[in-house]
Amino acid sequence: MELSPIDVSPRELQAYERLVAHEVDALVVTSPTNIRWLTGFAGSNATVVVFDNEVTLFTDNRYADRAPAELAGAGSSAQVGIASTELGDEVQDLLGSAELVALEADYVSWAQHQTINDEWLPAQTLVPTSGLIDRLRSRKDTAEIERIEAAAAIVDESLAQVRPLLGQRRTERDFARSLDAAIRSNGADDLGFDTIVASGPNGAIPHHSPGDRIIKPGDFVIVDVGAMVQGYRSDMTRTFSVGSMSREQRRHYDTVIAAQQAGVDSMLADAGTVEVDTAARAVIDQAGWADSFLHGTGHGVGLDIHELPRVGKGVTDVYEIGTVATVEPGVYLRGVGGVRIEDTCVVTETGARRLTKFPKDNPEV
Amino acid sequence: MELSPIDVSPRELQAYERLVAHEVDALVVTSPTNIRWLTGFAGSNATVVVFDNEVTLFTDNRYADRAPAELAGAGSSAQVGIASTELGDEVQDLLGSAELVALEADYVSWAQHQTINDEWLPAQTLVPTSGLIDRLRSRKDTAEIERIEAAAAIVDESLAQVRPLLGQRRTERDFARSLDAAIRSNGADDLGFDTIVASGPNGAIPHHSPGDRIIKPGDFVIVDVGAMVQGYRSDMTRTFSVGSMSREQRRHYDTVIAAQQAGVDSMLADAGTVEVDTAARAVIDQAGWADSFLHGTGHGVGLDIHELPRVGKGVTDVYEIGTVATVEPGVYLRGVGGVRIEDTCVVTETGARRLTKFPKDNPEV
Repeated sequence: MELSPIDVSPRELQAYERLVAHEVDALVVTSPTNIRWLTGFAGSNATVVVFDNEVTLFTDNRYADRAPAELAGAGSSAQVGIASTELGDEVQDLLGSAELVALEADYVSWAQHQTINDEWLPAQTLVPTSGLIDRLRSRKDTAEIERIEAAAAIVDESLAQVRPLLGQRRTERDFARSLDAAIRSNGADDLGFDTIVASGPNGAIPHHSPGDRIIKPGDFVIVDVGAMVQGYRSDMTRTFSVGSMSREQRRHYDTVIAAQQAGVDSMLADAGTVEVDTAARAVIDQAGWADSFLHGTGHGVGLDIHELPRVGKGVTDVYEIGTVATVEPGVYLRGVGGVRIEDTCVVTETGARRLTKFPKDNPEV
Repeated sequence: MELSPIDVSPRELQAYERLVAHEVDALVVTSPTNIRWLTGFAGSNATVVVFDNEVTLFTDNRYADRAPAELAGAGSSAQVGIASTELGDEVQDLLGSAELVALEADYVSWAQHQTINDEWLPAQTLVPTSGLIDRLRSRKDTAEIERIEAAAAIVDESLAQVRPLLGQRRTERDFARSLDAAIRSNGADDLGFDTIVASGPNGAIPHHSPGDRIIKPGDFVIVDVGAMVQGYRSDMTRTFSVGSMSREQRRHYDTVIAAQQAGVDSMLADAGTVEVDTAARAVIDQAGWADSFLHGTGHGVGLDIHELPRVGKGVTDVYEIGTVATVEPGVYLRGVGGVRIEDTCVVTETGARRLTKFPKDNPEV
């Protein structure tokens, strides 16, 4: 599939508007993911300054060939070949006329903050900000959605290929390795995150790592898996039953399916993310399992596997058109097993659209 | 191969001795890698406090089953089920009688520092420290060396399997994928880092990512690759020639081989790491390529792919018995190609021993 090119050029203005809203003169960006989103530069070592409606990227000699090429198309100017010893002077020159300079307080280390405060910008006042760029990232454009959808399609195809192995008494680890290998050979650049395969009683542990337990008849098996395409990730969970479900297993499975659907139905532009959490939780409460839904209902997905918005109790984040986030309720019964169902969805004008599409109506293997 | 269990129990005392040497009363550890080294806990969310000769680990409910099991054997006590909102009070209770509390300034964010300073420990003085635990990690014990050596052996085996593909006009990316797949199927838990395959003129770029260039006769091909076993990584670079080397290519290759051997020969207990850099660089200078060796000569390897010690010009780090580090000189000729040769080595009483062993005497494919 041919993917549309990513156009980072509008992001510069969006970032600058955020500076104005935060009443600071400039922003020093140190998070590699935020740098990638803002400029297109995907190297590991760079510093970006947003000031006076301009974005300037500083990086070292190793990226001499790459940085200008990756930045072509962005309005950003790249200054390549800046040794770490010169970086402070360069930033000081650029920001000489600024007074209030924002730093990403969640990403800049205490040591970096001290260096910037004492050596780079002794004449400026540093302001800690949180989520200034991250908040912009939560709303995806068409090219970004294409990549997440491409990653999701690779996982759908791969899971279909390896699904029969669930009935063949493999260990969790074996099954995870087969699934991971299929995802890579179907064209993903990488996994989206470490695959979770949790069978039988292990399914009651939301963050179980695949182990040596053999997947057996009577088990629920939670498979939580994603892929990465050009930096963008997908995230999906399906739960399978090895053999026919008992009546109580059917109720367990159907409850989570209904909760997930209720959540997706509430994922609307301008709605609070808390409404999705409330809707999914209501279905589970109704079934008598209020205390067995152990985590929030979702999270944003994109260049990071967990990013804004948050989706859970007490959260004030809001969906916009283009927001990509998961809806993933679960019911975890200690000693018995768990069911979790998760889709990565995008908010459109007419409601949420699922980007992960593996069927849920036939979970018995 | 059966690996000896890792015994973290002596590390607690080592950490405590570092506090005494730094004249602080306590240390709050936030780096997940340092937490893993110190306690054996490999989860993603934990905070560790070293105080009064005791190590205490705080983590949340998701790790209720795992944390106590992973910490068995360590002297550490685990407090599980601490919500992030309660963590500050717990740490405050524990450190009530401390005055000077060290924070890992390179890992704690500015935002975390503010929270700890203002809310958790308003009565204490926070002291920024750098490398306090990291420095201890550079010296490996037998069980750690076994894991690095096991990772290295998997890469040696995998590279031998896929080496013939270099003569079959594959792209760099194809070759990298085949090598990565072999490493995984030969039992690695993961790659050590993103594999580098740089052919022909791309070899002149030390950090080239594998791309669509077809590997052709006449090329040098740099392959920089590692594996991970139980959290520990290996790191090795070999350079191959597709077809027979020209006389100048032979001189290029032999120079780097000689530089690397000179480096390994200088990797001795109590020697400065700078001596390895000087020895390797002297051979390359002698051959007339002083300006074509673009990076430092090595770095420590272990739970992180780049860790202490540093090995380069102007560095004051010292090798000890048990230090594991790479020796990796290279000569990069713009527009022509590059040669880099790298081994991960451990310092023993009788000199450095290579843990990566893939042969270098027959680079022609």
